[in-house]
Amino acid sequence: MERPQKAVVLLSGGIDSTTTLAIAKHLGFTVYGLSFNYGQRHRLELENARKVAKYFSTEKHLIFEIDLAAIAESALTSHDTIPKERSLEQISTGIPPTYVPARNLIFLSIALSWAETLGASDVFIGANAVDYSGYPDCRPQFIEAFQKCATLATKTGVEGKEISIRSPLEGMRKAEIIQRGLELKVDYSLTRSCYDPSPEGLSCGKCDSCILRQNGFRKAGMEDPIEYSN
Amino acid sequence: MERPQKAVVLLSGGIDSTTTLAIAKHLGFTVYGLSFNYGQRHRLELENARKVAKYFSTEKHLIFEIDLAAIAESALTSHDTIPKERSLEQISTGIPPTYVPARNLIFLSIALSWAETLGASDVFIGANAVDYSGYPDCRPQFIEAFQKCATLATKTGVEGKEISIRSPLEGMRKAEIIQRGLELKVDYSLTRSCYDPSPEGLSCGKCDSCILRQNGFRKAGMEDPIEYSN
Repeated sequence: MERPQKAVVLLSGGIDSTTTLAIAKHLGFTVYGLSFNYGQRHRLELENARKVAKYFSTEKHLIFEIDLAAIAESALTSHDTIPKERSLEQISTGIPPTYVPARNLIFLSIALSWAETLGASDVFIGANAVDYSGYPDCRPQFIEAFQKCATLATKTGVEGKEISIRSPLEGMRKAEIIQRGLELKVDYSLTRSCYDPSPEGLSCGKCDSCILRQNGFRKAGMEDPIEYSN
Repeated sequence: MERPQKAVVLLSGGIDSTTTLAIAKHLGFTVYGLSFNYGQRHRLELENARKVAKYFSTEKHLIFEIDLAAIAESALTSHDTIPKERSLEQISTGIPPTYVPARNLIFLSIALSWAETLGASDVFIGANAVDYSGYPDCRPQFIEAFQKCATLATKTGVEGKEISIRSPLEGMRKAEIIQRGLELKVDYSLTRSCYDPSPEGLSCGKCDSCILRQNGFRKAGMEDPIEYSN
């Protein structure tokens, strides 16, 4: 019997990355979860990432420390105001102040480095840009360009192999992602999406991320199992 | 009069990055130096990076902390043996154990993030692969692929502009780099190239990096102004 292949999965503890992890497990990979403590206001999400990693029995879950606040300006890493109560139309227009310059590029680069060290064949990221195209580094064309870059950057690439950069949620709407996750036995009560949780850890229900989450559950005809402060 | 443009320059404190910084200054950029404390054995080089940044009066010099030893396997971040006393031919064959998976990709991604936050128009890296092609992420085709990725990853790119990724040493031999640096008044006594300095801070003179440096000075017909322990 062939040994299962290893995959590094970027894991924030939200719906997309958790579903991506479930997909990687379902495909038979031995999964290494990678989360980042990057100075985000909502670092409570790391607790969720831990729970999700435990629930899916990842081989390892690494929380990598990187102080992006030292270099990158964003409402996610500063005291700038996080937009609240925007309509879906407003949310889907332009690049929001929660954009962190080159964040996915940095995260993928670190995931790639770890993958090569582990001898992993794949890196998974839960990027998708259907409901929401505000983050440039969630678009399929970015993932494609990163794949080329990754192959040229690494020893693995020079040796004629490739570490595959996979974004299995591409082209899926939030409701479809939730439905797929439920088929794969994801427990969404372990996840968190909020950019601005209360000190008690409740999701605000008003930031873009909460609104997209709630809308996704509504469209999927499911109840969101987490509590909100509003 | 137009305001000078800003550039982020990756600065290790070695010959290549120091010369690159001199070139960026010569081109009229306001320079932001970026160095990494990444768990390298030879972190004494950060002292040299500081001296170089001071010598060239950079607008700012940031030493960014990132623990690559937590994810990446390499003789530069572990107690593995650093190759010594190799011939130039041996040095130029294959990928050495001092390769750190995806290091330049990670460093460039962080530099790009900082550049976008600063409103910088350019990122400079001292990559070159003429005397030594062992590191895949020093090759021109990697830099090109990264440029595409950078433009797709960022708000700047979405807005139809581009942060230019520049590697002005591409195509230059070590001796030519040194000659260009001397024209630009680089003080190479401030620099350090050694992968394995002595506890007293002297360069070993035997690792690949020392050998390439010494060979470069010899070919340039100049004396290397630093001290060696051998």
